[in-house]
Amino acid sequence: MAKAVLTISSKNYSSWSLRGWLLCKIAGIAFEERLLPIEDASARAELLLLSPSFRTPALDHDGLHIWDTLAIAEYLAEICPSAGILPADRAGRSHNRSVSGEMHSGFANLRSALPMNIKAEFPNFRIWSGARPDIARVVQIFRECLDQYGGPFLFGARPTLADAMFAPVCSRFATYRVALDSDAAGYRDHILNWAPMVEWAEAARVEPDEMEELDVEF
Amino acid sequence: MAKAVLTISSKNYSSWSLRGWLLCKIAGIAFEERLLPIEDASARAELLLLSPSFRTPALDHDGLHIWDTLAIAEYLAEICPSAGILPADRAGRSHNRSVSGEMHSGFANLRSALPMNIKAEFPNFRIWSGARPDIARVVQIFRECLDQYGGPFLFGARPTLADAMFAPVCSRFATYRVALDSDAAGYRDHILNWAPMVEWAEAARVEPDEMEELDVEF
Repeated sequence: MAKAVLTISSKNYSSWSLRGWLLCKIAGIAFEERLLPIEDASARAELLLLSPSFRTPALDHDGLHIWDTLAIAEYLAEICPSAGILPADRAGRSHNRSVSGEMHSGFANLRSALPMNIKAEFPNFRIWSGARPDIARVVQIFRECLDQYGGPFLFGARPTLADAMFAPVCSRFATYRVALDSDAAGYRDHILNWAPMVEWAEAARVEPDEMEELDVEF
Repeated sequence: MAKAVLTISSKNYSSWSLRGWLLCKIAGIAFEERLLPIEDASARAELLLLSPSFRTPALDHDGLHIWDTLAIAEYLAEICPSAGILPADRAGRSHNRSVSGEMHSGFANLRSALPMNIKAEFPNFRIWSGARPDIARVVQIFRECLDQYGGPFLFGARPTLADAMFAPVCSRFATYRVALDSDAAGYRDHILNWAPMVEWAEAARVEPDEMEELDVEF
């Protein structure tokens, strides 16, 4: 079987690329990264938060091309059932998919007001009021999952789809110094210190910054 | 086992409610509808296309509460494997999930410029240029699926998750008289004449219109 190829865009700015990459790490598959140049329409649309639907990240594996983050997750869960991308019990699985789906389709205000920017620090960032209900809802999800499954990941001892979905939010909470209660802050730090996240963040910090050439405010 | 309960909001305006409802119909489960009053924050947020993440539709079944459309689809596919919500082969399944995920997370311009409004007709509607790439991409998805799987549904002879996801778009194409090529128009009409869609649309047309009380332009 040919090695899997994961197509991603910027490691510093692309939250969806990070999600797809973390899913491959959780799955434990061998994969190569293909970095989409920022001139590519799909990469640009994603980084600038534009519709139409972008198709990054994408996974090429075993003759298949899969271009949506949740579709990649379900595919990896099928071919790597022991990796625990989804909880083994139906109740946990449907809960995991519900919070992951909520992140996938929602939180538009959070995403536009606090774009992922791993290498940046904005200690005095003023959070737009429209994004605050999104932040409160994310913190509620964290609290409910940590209470129910005992942490340190959202669904217990091992990382799952839900952690991949919310990892970029943890990065944003750090970048923009979003005030969190101790439980949510503990989860944020657990994710930021999780080995795959550390690896990704180190690569993000040394990535050539093509976004500056786009002359866009971030 | 207690009967399933599907929580939905407006049948005329809520495209997400329609998707969840069609999934239950494809699954063939017995379910009751619970109509969320428009005063409810979740219903209102969804209908007005506001973030934060809304949690409608939601399925209560067998002690579980599942509140995201794709999570509902995966749950129903698990408990009703013979219903064909997802294709039986892995390639078709990952393709189906990719186009469905694209609809789930994308097409923001299409959704905001052409909100679902089943009972309305806008024969001279001027489509905002920002929504046109979304429409072109939807038509491309239709064409690729119909070519590959032979129609009349997107993945062949039987309705699947992908049809539930794109059914509200077919309704919008009719409401706003979006010009389509003959293949896309044929698929649109097939969906609009599909028995569950006819049943939903009939209910939408006689629904009391609470949106008018919100004094919002649609």
